[in-house]
Amino acid sequence: MANFENLLEEINSYNTTDMFGNDFMQTWHKTEDELKATLKVADALRNLRERNISTKIFDSGLGVSIFRDNSTRTRFSFASACNMLGLAVQDLDEKKSQISHGETVRETATMISFMADVIGIRDDMYIGKGDAYMREVIESVKESQEDGILEQRPNLVDLQDDTDHPTQALADLDHIIHEIGGIENLKGKKIVMSWAYSPSYGKPLSVAQAIIGLMTRFGMDVTLTHPEGYEVMPEIEELAQKNAEKSGGSFKKTYDMKEAFTDADVIYCKSWAPFKAMEKRTELYSEGDFDAIDELEEELLKQNRQHKDWACTEEMMELTKDGKALYMHPLPADITGVSADEGEVDASVFDRYRNELYKEASYKPYVIAAMIFLSKFQLPGQALKDLEKRGKQRHYDE
Amino acid sequence: MANFENLLEEINSYNTTDMFGNDFMQTWHKTEDELKATLKVADALRNLRERNISTKIFDSGLGVSIFRDNSTRTRFSFASACNMLGLAVQDLDEKKSQISHGETVRETATMISFMADVIGIRDDMYIGKGDAYMREVIESVKESQEDGILEQRPNLVDLQDDTDHPTQALADLDHIIHEIGGIENLKGKKIVMSWAYSPSYGKPLSVAQAIIGLMTRFGMDVTLTHPEGYEVMPEIEELAQKNAEKSGGSFKKTYDMKEAFTDADVIYCKSWAPFKAMEKRTELYSEGDFDAIDELEEELLKQNRQHKDWACTEEMMELTKDGKALYMHPLPADITGVSADEGEVDASVFDRYRNELYKEASYKPYVIAAMIFLSKFQLPGQALKDLEKRGKQRHYDE
Amino acid sequence: MANFENLLEEINSYNTTDMFGNDFMQTWHKTEDELKATLKVADALRNLRERNISTKIFDSGLGVSIFRDNSTRTRFSFASACNMLGLAVQDLDEKKSQISHGETVRETATMISFMADVIGIRDDMYIGKGDAYMREVIESVKESQEDGILEQRPNLVDLQDDTDHPTQALADLDHIIHEIGGIENLKGKKIVMSWAYSPSYGKPLSVAQAIIGLMTRFGMDVTLTHPEGYEVMPEIEELAQKNAEKSGGSFKKTYDMKEAFTDADVIYCKSWAPFKAMEKRTELYSEGDFDAIDELEEELLKQNRQHKDWACTEEMMELTKDGKALYMHPLPADITGVSADEGEVDASVFDRYRNELYKEASYKPYVIAAMIFLSKFQLPGQALKDLEKRGKQRHYDE
Repeated sequence: MANFENLLEEINSYNTTDMFGNDFMQTWHKTEDELKATLKVADALRNLRERNISTKIFDSGLGVSIFRDNSTRTRFSFASACNMLGLAVQDLDEKKSQISHGETVRETATMISFMADVIGIRDDMYIGKGDAYMREVIESVKESQEDGILEQRPNLVDLQDDTDHPTQALADLDHIIHEIGGIENLKGKKIVMSWAYSPSYGKPLSVAQAIIGLMTRFGMDVTLTHPEGYEVMPEIEELAQKNAEKSGGSFKKTYDMKEAFTDADVIYCKSWAPFKAMEKRTELYSEGDFDAIDELEEELLKQNRQHKDWACTEEMMELTKDGKALYMHPLPADITGVSADEGEVDASVFDRYRNELYKEASYKPYVIAAMIFLSKFQLPGQALKDLEKRGKQRHYDE
Repeated sequence: MANFENLLEEINSYNTTDMFGNDFMQTWHKTEDELKATLKVADALRNLRERNISTKIFDSGLGVSIFRDNSTRTRFSFASACNMLGLAVQDLDEKKSQISHGETVRETATMISFMADVIGIRDDMYIGKGDAYMREVIESVKESQEDGILEQRPNLVDLQDDTDHPTQALADLDHIIHEIGGIENLKGKKIVMSWAYSPSYGKPLSVAQAIIGLMTRFGMDVTLTHPEGYEVMPEIEELAQKNAEKSGGSFKKTYDMKEAFTDADVIYCKSWAPFKAMEKRTELYSEGDFDAIDELEEELLKQNRQHKDWACTEEMMELTKDGKALYMHPLPADITGVSADEGEVDASVFDRYRNELYKEASYKPYVIAAMIFLSKFQLPGQALKDLEKRGKQRHYDE
Repeated sequence: MANFENLLEEINSYNTTDMFGNDFMQTWHKTEDELKATLKVADALRNLRERNISTKIFDSGLGVSIFRDNSTRTRFSFASACNMLGLAVQDLDEKKSQISHGETVRETATMISFMADVIGIRDDMYIGKGDAYMREVIESVKESQEDGILEQRPNLVDLQDDTDHPTQALADLDHIIHEIGGIENLKGKKIVMSWAYSPSYGKPLSVAQAIIGLMTRFGMDVTLTHPEGYEVMPEIEELAQKNAEKSGGSFKKTYDMKEAFTDADVIYCKSWAPFKAMEKRTELYSEGDFDAIDELEEELLKQNRQHKDWACTEEMMELTKDGKALYMHPLPADITGVSADEGEVDASVFDRYRNELYKEASYKPYVIAAMIFLSKFQLPGQALKDLEKRGKQRHYDE
């Protein structure tokens, strides 16, 4: 693994100018340099922490979180990232708050930001809503800072929107890179983003889209596979196509799961709801037609049940490169016979890859911390070097 | 704007002896010196923060919050104030707690205070209850410290009671002072505290009372206006009258909104429920007569609807000094056509003053921090000077 | 009271090797040295805090709490302990989280632990469950650290399980020791753990068991008394018996409350539900038979009502040594005429001992902090000495 000096050298070689004072939304709005810098800063922060060196860059300040969907992993990852940088987490629990009907996003965003250095938002439930909400928050705090209301501008970290899940996909990418020994080895590796059966309904598209939107950036051969009718957003498929062309990799789509798995180096296998259905649900939701939503749910569950054979079984894993592809999942998974009668993955497959899956998850706090870090420093490499030099212990050591 | 040295000079000129080790309840229990010191310490803390100088006076310690009513602004303001002074916020969520029926206030107050340096409470729903509860908490922790149970006495900050909303009114006053260029310019300025129509019911009286109770202290000409039957507590009107006499200002009451607005420098326009009705609701509540409460609510909503013309319209604003009075509101406002069909204020008025309204709100975290600060130092000016000298960065700067 | 140097000397004299990197579950799995060290480290941390010396040993890091039962006292004690050591508290609210049905304990435990230095758990509701759950969490994070997933292993603090309440019992013991002037004076003192009537149902057994399991370790004469049918777990009684034999104290059981109270030095009097009934409830719960649970509740309440005479009355207190035994309770108590029509204790008894009861509670934050402290240092005495030498102020002092 790269040592600290090497990491700093790499970080210094990337152009991160536009990340300073900026937000982290979809990975497709970031340059390759910016994405690589994020991964390397994450690694450098982890390196410091492993050596018991404090990574606090704030003496005080708030990290505000807004979760419009349940969350354990991302919530703890955001809290961990804030904590390791010195920010206290203040959650905006919309149920306990006094946000009046019709109150503008700008008002709420400003009211919670007087001492906020970062805002993390998860809003992934409705097509066209999460991304739009986050951008409105960004515009709001920008405007409020320009108007002299906010002394500092909190930078936003997208903790999952309706199109992308950047902290997840970058943590996943960091995991792959560590498993295969370097970014340079991504070229030509085959990764499969596969749909899988789940007895539950309405899982966000954003993980699948995040994976095909990101992994096509670095020369990987990306295959998207799912049953007919489970299409993701067409613009994300187009984007993946263009990414692949540019990076020298490839992007393929197939309805044949077996074809997809054959000779794969990495298998990412999870359930999602069809884009068209999610779009329809969003419409019904804004019309307040909850009966129709219930009907839609029934239909989708029925449709799902026709594809119970879409699972990451031992047989399917056999088809991958030497039968040993890296199996990945954002967790929690629907494990057949464990968390579901029939689910996304065989228990024996899941068990074999348990440690890798947990390691995969371990990158997320550092990736979020890196996103924040890069929004705060013009010279992130220098700042990291200064932290090492300061050499403050994270925990008092005998 | 006053520089840091000038602020310290002013702070040193005030007698704040009684604030040390003490609580911040209603403004009318504070001297002019104490109120001015609070504003100037707030400004000084903001000055330090703007210069990236840490204002942490605690290495560890808890700021305990108890919210008996929903809150976004005050919750975040309290969290921000605690954070900038170095305290971690621990919320007493009465729903998750194991406070047994009949448990004394002294017991709960003591149990949450072993490591608490400050307690912030919002309890504004029932007449005669909020203030009483807070005073019982104060007595409790005082007693527990005297009895050797608590090593330190947490000081209480009143985050809104049934009679006053001191952190709001002082943030408002700080805003006015900054807009008009100094405390000395308050004399002779006309401020209107006006009732306004809102489709909702039971808004606390405490903001209106806070404004007339505080603004009469500094020589302003204060006019209270509302429809007949929307009287505030008579003792607060008397208090405002006495304040005005003492400060060389004036306090007037009128049922004629137009008369009130004419030539005003500042318009504070918001809804509240009549004191008599709130008193009745409190009685019904203690009798557990929820049907009667529902009836009362219906009556009040009906009564409100007769006064839809009480709104801060463009026409009304035209009447003010040069048509340009400073419009104020504690937020969130019921904005006509935005957050309500008919509400407290025209959308165009609100929009024009949006930035000022947000700036108004920005003072609250600093005012709360100043209240805490003054309860902790005998020589607050010296302590602020020491913080500047210490010169610790709030956020690590390249 | 012992001064700091004496405390360090005592701490250095105990063998705490096995506490380093370890967890704090039931007191009966700790040696006498380890228990004494916990009390003395608690006292030393309190001593430092009283002298305004910072006890922060973490620059950043999380203290994760999981409360599967309501809590005020223990919640605030855990938050206080974490705060004084420098950890931010992150609560795993199982309602807001995305823990999927069937998700393994190892998965959740790992996901919340990437930056956790300590995990505190309260899980006391079902026989055989709380302890088992905690041990699974311990095994999980141990395994995840060994597998290279976690960089540090969070140590677990048992904040009450179905068998023991170690933080409560040790805080209680620290209180007794301070009241009687030293550990060495425990020998021969009579402490009574008495059942008492309460109108509520299903209070955990763990406090009663914690008391007889711990107080028998130091030569005290421990008497357990309750109505027939209110037996605690037989293995805890056996354990108490063995402890007493080993420590030179005694353990007696009687159904005669008066006999128990006679000549007692310490009275610990609180309600609990019979072990057999709790066991049955657990079974019914796992069968999902909620009607039978309701029936059981009715039965138990009826049975309770036959023992309203089991209360800590003035008459009963008269029987104790000089009528002046130390009255103890973990709080909140069911006080006759205050928090219950008929309850565990007379109001006048409770009032007379109020200050002592609150002092008793004040030891808990320090006991928890000591448990964490001892899990983090091989040479706790040296670490405490270093903190004193560092001499950082807890709050900035003029």
